Amino acid sequence: MQPDHDTIFAPATATGGAIAVIRISGDEAFTVCDRIFCGRTPLAETESHTVHYGLIVDGERTVDDVLTTVFRAPHSYTGENSVEISCHGSAYIVSEILRLLLAAGGRMAAPGEFTLRAYFAGKLDLSQAEAVADLIASSSRAAHALASNQMRGGYSAALDTLRDRLLHLASLLELELDFSEEDVEFADRGELQQTMEHIDLEIERLRNSFALGNALKEGIPVTIVGAPNAGKSTLLNRLLDEERAIVSEIAGTTRDVIEETVNIEGIRFRFVDTAGIRSTDDRLERLGIERTLQRIAQARIIIRVLDIEAFAAKTSLRSEHPVPAPDFEIPQSATLLTVANKIDLYPELVLPQGVIGLSAQNGQGLDTLRRALLQAVGSNALEQGDIVVSNGRHFEVLTIAHEALGQALHGLCSGLPADLLSEEIRQVIRHIGEITGRGVILSDEILQNIFSKFCIGK
Amino acid sequence: MQPDHDTIFAPATATGGAIAVIRISGDEAFTVCDRIFCGRTPLAETESHTVHYGLIVDGERTVDDVLTTVFRAPHSYTGENSVEISCHGSAYIVSEILRLLLAAGGRMAAPGEFTLRAYFAGKLDLSQAEAVADLIASSSRAAHALASNQMRGGYSAALDTLRDRLLHLASLLELELDFSEEDVEFADRGELQQTMEHIDLEIERLRNSFALGNALKEGIPVTIVGAPNAGKSTLLNRLLDEERAIVSEIAGTTRDVIEETVNIEGIRFRFVDTAGIRSTDDRLERLGIERTLQRIAQARIIIRVLDIEAFAAKTSLRSEHPVPAPDFEIPQSATLLTVANKIDLYPELVLPQGVIGLSAQNGQGLDTLRRALLQAVGSNALEQGDIVVSNGRHFEVLTIAHEALGQALHGLCSGLPADLLSEEIRQVIRHIGEITGRGVILSDEILQNIFSKFCIGK
Repeated sequence: MQPDHDTIFAPATATGGAIAVIRISGDEAFTVCDRIFCGRTPLAETESHTVHYGLIVDGERTVDDVLTTVFRAPHSYTGENSVEISCHGSAYIVSEILRLLLAAGGRMAAPGEFTLRAYFAGKLDLSQAEAVADLIASSSRAAHALASNQMRGGYSAALDTLRDRLLHLASLLELELDFSEEDVEFADRGELQQTMEHIDLEIERLRNSFALGNALKEGIPVTIVGAPNAGKSTLLNRLLDEERAIVSEIAGTTRDVIEETVNIEGIRFRFVDTAGIRSTDDRLERLGIERTLQRIAQARIIIRVLDIEAFAAKTSLRSEHPVPAPDFEIPQSATLLTVANKIDLYPELVLPQGVIGLSAQNGQGLDTLRRALLQAVGSNALEQGDIVVSNGRHFEVLTIAHEALGQALHGLCSGLPADLLSEEIRQVIRHIGEITGRGVILSDEILQNIFSKFCIGK
Repeated sequence: MQPDHDTIFAPATATGGAIAVIRISGDEAFTVCDRIFCGRTPLAETESHTVHYGLIVDGERTVDDVLTTVFRAPHSYTGENSVEISCHGSAYIVSEILRLLLAAGGRMAAPGEFTLRAYFAGKLDLSQAEAVADLIASSSRAAHALASNQMRGGYSAALDTLRDRLLHLASLLELELDFSEEDVEFADRGELQQTMEHIDLEIERLRNSFALGNALKEGIPVTIVGAPNAGKSTLLNRLLDEERAIVSEIAGTTRDVIEETVNIEGIRFRFVDTAGIRSTDDRLERLGIERTLQRIAQARIIIRVLDIEAFAAKTSLRSEHPVPAPDFEIPQSATLLTVANKIDLYPELVLPQGVIGLSAQNGQGLDTLRRALLQAVGSNALEQGDIVVSNGRHFEVLTIAHEALGQALHGLCSGLPADLLSEEIRQVIRHIGEITGRGVILSDEILQNIFSKFCIGK
C-alpha cells in the first residue's frame, strides 16, 4: 500500500448535534476548500492553527456560515495540509458541503483513512493507531485507560525493547557468519538461550495479560448461577439500581440470554442470569442447562447464589454445616464467589467462611460483593501502569511470535548453525514488528484489515 | 431575564462520531479551561481564533489529548470569551471532560443558552436566533433556504421597515399633543389611513406566506385519494423508488396512517395514502372514510387517482367523457391533481384535458406529475427571495399585530383623539418588535419559550 496524498474528506462528527465538523486532508486541501469557502483571506494564505469565519457557497447560493480551522503540514493529525469545517449540525447542510467538496476535487475518505495517513507519516505506530479506534469506542474508565496507555506508546516502547534485544542477538549470530571459516562464536550459546528464554517469558506475560485486557475492554463476563428461588434476579436488580450507571440490555448470542451491564468503579461487568442446574428429563429444560454450562465456561467470575432457605434449614441442625459443592465445573481461569441472599430473613444465621451474606432487600452485604468482584478482576495491574494487551490482533501476533521463539530455542538447543538460527530470530523480530508496524513492511491485507474497522472521519 | 456571564459548557456534537466538540463560554472561560487543560501556554495567554494542542488532565491522569480553539470576547458566537474543546468522540471521554469542567467552576448550559447569550450580546436578533434552531433541524433544500434567509436577516430588515414607518406615524400624532391647544393636525388623516392600510397589507402578505413557509419547513402534505384498485400505492412506491431520496416512514397521529416522505428538487413532500371514499353502512369503514376526509382537509395538494378501467370503459362509449366530479370537498387552499394510472394498459385512451396520464409500471408521466406537484407548491416565491414566514410564533404575533392595526384603523375612522390613536399604533409596534426582539423588552416567558426548544450546546 502506497501513501496517497490526494484530498480526502469526511464528516468527523455524528449527525444530530448543534454543530458538525467535516475534516479535509491532502496536499491540495487548501485549494479544494478555497473553491467553496469565502472568508476574509483564502485559506491557502492563512497560518497554521488559526480559525477563520466565512461562508460555504454553491455558486451564488450560501449553504452555511462556518468556521474553518487550518493545519499546515506537517503540523496536523495526518501530517498533511488539513482543514476542519465547523458548520451548523444539519444533515442537509453536511451533505451539501460533502457534495461541494466532491465537486471541488476532493474525494470521500475511506474508514480510518486519516489515521492511515498519520501512520504513513510516522505520526503514530500501528498499535497506537489501533488505540485511537479503541479510545473512541471506550465506554468505561478501564477501557479508556487501556486504550489511553496504548495510544501514549507505553506498549510500543515495551515491544521496541524486546525487538532491540532480539536484533542484537541476531546481529551477533550474523557476525559469526562473516568469520565462518574461523569457527568463532561471538554469541555465547548459554547466554543466548538464557536471553531468549527471558524474552519468551516477557512475550508470555504480554499474552497472558490479554485475558484481563480483553475482559476490561469488552466488559467482565459474570455468570450468576443458582436455584430459581435463590433471588438471583433481585440481586442483579439491586446492583443495577445502586450503580445508577450505564445500564443496557444486550441481546446475547442466543436470543433468550439477556446481559445486564453495570459499571463498578470504572470497570464494566456483563452480568448473565442463568437458569438453575438440576437433573431433568425435560428436553427444553436440558437445553437451558446446556446454555447455563456454556455461560459458566465463558465466565471470568461466577456468582453462585445459595438457596438460603434450604441452607438455613440444614444449618439449624449443625452450625458448621459446610457449603455444598457446586454441581458444575469451575473453569480454571474463573473466580467463584459464593453468595447467600435474603440474610435479612435469617438474622441469627452464621455463614461459613468465604460465603458473602447479602440482602437484596435492604442492600446489606452489597459493598462486600462489589469489593469481591473488583478483587476477582485483578485490575490493579492496570492501575500500576503494567502493559496490558487488549487487542485481539496483537494477541494473535504475540502467540505466533511465541511459537517462533520456541522453534528458535529448539534450534539453538539442537545445535542449529548460526545462519539458520539468526533467520529464526529474524522471524520473531518480524512478528513483533507487525504489532507496531516498525521495521517491517506490512501487507496491504493487514493494513486494510486494521483500518477498515475504523469509523468514517477518523 | 438578565444576561448571565458565568461560565457555561455543553457538548455541541452528537455522540458516536470520530471527534466530539465541547463548547465553553463566559467571562472566566479561559481560567476554567486552564484548570483542566495542559498545553504549551495557558489559554488565557493565547490569541483569539487560534488552536492549541494539549492534554485534558484529571490530576495525574490524562483523560484525552485534544485541540482547543480560543475565541476572545467580543469575537465569538456568544460575544463572550469562549473555548471549543475537540476531543476523541467517546461518550466516556465527553462525560469525563464535562465532569472536570463542572469541578473547575463551570456549569452545564441550558438548551439554547449559548444563542440566548448571543442574542443578549446583540450578535443576532430574536428571529435570527430562532432561525439557527431551524437551520440545524433543516432536512431539505427548501427548509434550509427558509432558515438561511431568516438567519441572514432579510426578514428582520422587512419588519424593521414596517416598524420605522409606524414609529413615524406615531411620532407625528404625538407631536400634535404638544400643540393640543392649537388643534393642529400634523398627520393628515387621509394619508394616515392610506399608510396604515398599506402596512396592514404587508403584514397580511407576511401572514399569508406562513401557509407555504410552514408547509416547506414541515413538508408539503399531499393526500392521495382513489378507489383501492386504482393503483395509489404503486404510484407512491414508484415515486419513492425514483427519487432515491430521504425516505422515511412517520407514524401519523392516527396509528394506521403511514406517511411517506419524498424530496423532489429540494422540497419535501409528505404523502399520505388513504382509504377510498364510498357510501357504506360498515362502522369500521365509515371510520376509515372519516379519517380520509380529515386528511383531505389538511392537505395542500390532493392527488386523485382515477380508476382507469372504469374510466376507459365509459370513454369507449363517448370519447369526450368528462371526468366525474370528486365525491369529496376540496379545501379552498388545496390544489387538486387528477391522475389516471395504468395508461400502459390503454395506449389508445385519450385523456380529458387536465388529467395526468401515468404508468407506475413503466414510469411514463411521472415527470409531468412531479412538475405539477412543484408548481402546486408555488415555491418560486422562495427562489425569488421573497420573505416567507415559517415560524409559528411569528405567525401568531403577526396575527395579533394585524388585529391591533385593524383596531387602530377603526379608531382612526371613528375620529379617535391623537393620544389614544398613537397608543393603538404603539401597540402594533410592540407586537412587531416581539418578532425580532428589537426595541422591546421581552418577558422571561417569551424568551424561555423560545430558547428551551433549542438543543443543548447551541
